[in-house]
Amino acid sequence: MIDFRALDLSTLTAHIHNRKISSTEVVEYYLDRISALDDKLKSFVYLSETALKQAKQADKRIAAGKSLGALQGVPIAIKDNYLTQDMPTTAGTEAPGISFPQTDSFVSARLREAGAILIGKTRTHEFAWGNVTPPTRNPWNLDFVPSGSSGGSAAAVAAGLCAAATGSDTGGSIRMPAAACGLVGLKPTFGRVSRAGIVPHSWSLDHAGPLTRTVKDSALMLNVIAGYDAADPACQDRPKPDYLKKLNKPIAGMTIGICRNHFFDDNQPDVDRAVELAIDAFAKAGVKIIEFEIPRLEFGLGAIFAIELASSTAYHDVSLRKGLVANFTPDVRTLVEVGRLVSAADYLKAEQLRTLLMQDFADVFKTCDAIVGPTTPITAWRSGTWRVPIGDQDTSVLSASWRYTFPYNLTGLPAISIPCGFDRQGLPIGLQIAGRPFEESVVLQIANAYEKSHEWVNQYPAL
Amino acid sequence: MIDFRALDLSTLTAHIHNRKISSTEVVEYYLDRISALDDKLKSFVYLSETALKQAKQADKRIAAGKSLGALQGVPIAIKDNYLTQDMPTTAGTEAPGISFPQTDSFVSARLREAGAILIGKTRTHEFAWGNVTPPTRNPWNLDFVPSGSSGGSAAAVAAGLCAAATGSDTGGSIRMPAAACGLVGLKPTFGRVSRAGIVPHSWSLDHAGPLTRTVKDSALMLNVIAGYDAADPACQDRPKPDYLKKLNKPIAGMTIGICRNHFFDDNQPDVDRAVELAIDAFAKAGVKIIEFEIPRLEFGLGAIFAIELASSTAYHDVSLRKGLVANFTPDVRTLVEVGRLVSAADYLKAEQLRTLLMQDFADVFKTCDAIVGPTTPITAWRSGTWRVPIGDQDTSVLSASWRYTFPYNLTGLPAISIPCGFDRQGLPIGLQIAGRPFEESVVLQIANAYEKSHEWVNQYPAL
Repeated sequence: MIDFRALDLSTLTAHIHNRKISSTEVVEYYLDRISALDDKLKSFVYLSETALKQAKQADKRIAAGKSLGALQGVPIAIKDNYLTQDMPTTAGTEAPGISFPQTDSFVSARLREAGAILIGKTRTHEFAWGNVTPPTRNPWNLDFVPSGSSGGSAAAVAAGLCAAATGSDTGGSIRMPAAACGLVGLKPTFGRVSRAGIVPHSWSLDHAGPLTRTVKDSALMLNVIAGYDAADPACQDRPKPDYLKKLNKPIAGMTIGICRNHFFDDNQPDVDRAVELAIDAFAKAGVKIIEFEIPRLEFGLGAIFAIELASSTAYHDVSLRKGLVANFTPDVRTLVEVGRLVSAADYLKAEQLRTLLMQDFADVFKTCDAIVGPTTPITAWRSGTWRVPIGDQDTSVLSASWRYTFPYNLTGLPAISIPCGFDRQGLPIGLQIAGRPFEESVVLQIANAYEKSHEWVNQYPAL
Repeated sequence: MIDFRALDLSTLTAHIHNRKISSTEVVEYYLDRISALDDKLKSFVYLSETALKQAKQADKRIAAGKSLGALQGVPIAIKDNYLTQDMPTTAGTEAPGISFPQTDSFVSARLREAGAILIGKTRTHEFAWGNVTPPTRNPWNLDFVPSGSSGGSAAAVAAGLCAAATGSDTGGSIRMPAAACGLVGLKPTFGRVSRAGIVPHSWSLDHAGPLTRTVKDSALMLNVIAGYDAADPACQDRPKPDYLKKLNKPIAGMTIGICRNHFFDDNQPDVDRAVELAIDAFAKAGVKIIEFEIPRLEFGLGAIFAIELASSTAYHDVSLRKGLVANFTPDVRTLVEVGRLVSAADYLKAEQLRTLLMQDFADVFKTCDAIVGPTTPITAWRSGTWRVPIGDQDTSVLSASWRYTFPYNLTGLPAISIPCGFDRQGLPIGLQIAGRPFEESVVLQIANAYEKSHEWVNQYPAL
């Protein structure tokens, strides 16, 4: 049997178009892997009952020369906070009295239009809060977490249980699990991809994006899901480039900025080493490296917490008043209830800091094309553990895990996490590349150049 | 002596340019009126010590053929929450420990560049809170209030103590005093005029605009003060039309919308009568009249209160922590302290309602060019009184006075108040005309057509 995991989405789709392989074979392959492995991984919460039927229909239509979309016949997993018309949505909650309509989110519909087969729904931390995704495990070490909140999607893609998946990212929930599971995770610019039909966490911080095995796959997924949608008030009506087009353009002559405060304050030594090697590799590839600091990042955590807590509480307002929040998991219940205590005046102060940070980053981007650093200061941690060592110190994973990802939620800038090696435990390390607003093409181009010249890409955990 | 009040700003400036009259004469005329009348009106808190000197210099430069700005040599009064480099600013507070820099606000600088002579600072309710401006009195009846918070500017212009004045409008503070004092008060679109250097009240609701005796004067003032300024983050970089250009274009064939809920629920009978006559006059002038309702306006008061209280509290954060707010006037102190209790979740709900209202108005503007209604349900009220009759009912002036103005602060739409008659007590009534975003030209054109065909314009109170 072909190892379909080794084929990127373009190749897989081309083979299906050319009838070299059938969608039915591909879907069967992934369903078999799911049934063999997902008892251990717990990445799916729901499997499509009609995926195989859809694949057979796709094969028929392809045989008739019809339906040659960019993801024709390819099985894609959907994070369970995206509404789907043919599968239930739970947003990770089991609280009684909470339910969601069975209708397609904008992204689900776009994927279907491109011919994708939505193979199942992946596990999320309740309401996409949290940096773990219990009980999902990390395919690189089943005793470890896949991070969160898109941990189900990340585990499923990394374990080869689907060709790619969707995630959502409010403080790092695409990029953190991508880093922890050795994947490519893209948080596009705020307003680039519609969140219509995704259960909201924090309106002004939420982003939708793909989790994939390669940068090229990420670009292809973005081609499919980006674009204007009036149903998301934040979505911007802007021209959409072909994100595959500039992917292989040389990066020599570009300038990469390194923010030496905040992003390098407290990293595990293996993370520091891997990221410095990556920066050296860019320099050797003819990229100019500049260094800078953004002192105000020091106050960012307070700002994003105020905004995230307040927005989540506003979203859950009716559930709070109905007493339904009492049945949330204790951590999410606490956060939603604590959010009531954020004052509007504090919220406005947080929004003002956000504006200042956007200006700080805009100033930096006058002198560089992208900003590179670690995605997270730590690699994946043992399930059930809430403190990890950073050098001689013990650190809270809650505060450490999203430290480098949340600045790009506050500022809305596009940011990608790509694999940049492994730590001494064999766990993946993530490199984060951020760009100017709506310059996903530049971010993808730089990520692709790195990926092409390093061996980390498309490695598989032994399962 | 010439009655300079009868000359509009364009004529006054033209005469000064042509040396038919001198700036010195004009400034002397207004300073004489101030010294004769302002003991009764209490509209100014500070008079420029150099106004006459500036006028003489202007006359010299004009004689030399230089300095022919759009307001050359014309005395303009500045609301005392606009910073000015040659006069102190108090923003209406006497609380110890609060002070403001002596530097020009964007608008002050623009007026100076156009040659205006900033003759003095006009009284504002403390921090531009409030719908009265104690101890300022209404020139039409000295026992009555001029409304607020730009009550000093309105009283000064109406009494002929300056050629025009600036105001600021967070919930109606330009349009309410314009209506109460028989003037033209324009709140431009949010983002049209920079608020840089104006003491903030509520960032997302504050607007800067002119108080003038005629619509043409309003257009001329807007020509001078509108335009992009990066120092105000809300200011938009958009083309600026010549607002005088379309002023006299015929309005026949245009469509005016009347919002029959909210704006007509509870008006004094004289106000209702005057506004219905104005609507009839538009119909007779060949304007199509359509009627509609915006049910969600019912919830607007709660939304603007949440936003205004929260923003004001955030602005006064440091003063609250230093204990300086205890020395504010009791009403403003209460509002600033109460604002601490608005939760961020409530604030977000208010912002969501605001977005929905913006959509409601955008839908209405698909079928009409402007919306016409009363500026306020009541005319000016007796100083010291807090309840006024509306028909058989007694109403709180606090809740009634801004009921029709605040919707355009929430939505940011341009709105003007123009005189449309007098009530049985001889007090002026205001007609409000609102337009699409950045369509001040349309609003001014309609206002001008009304003004030209009615006798209310440029009437003077007997003082």
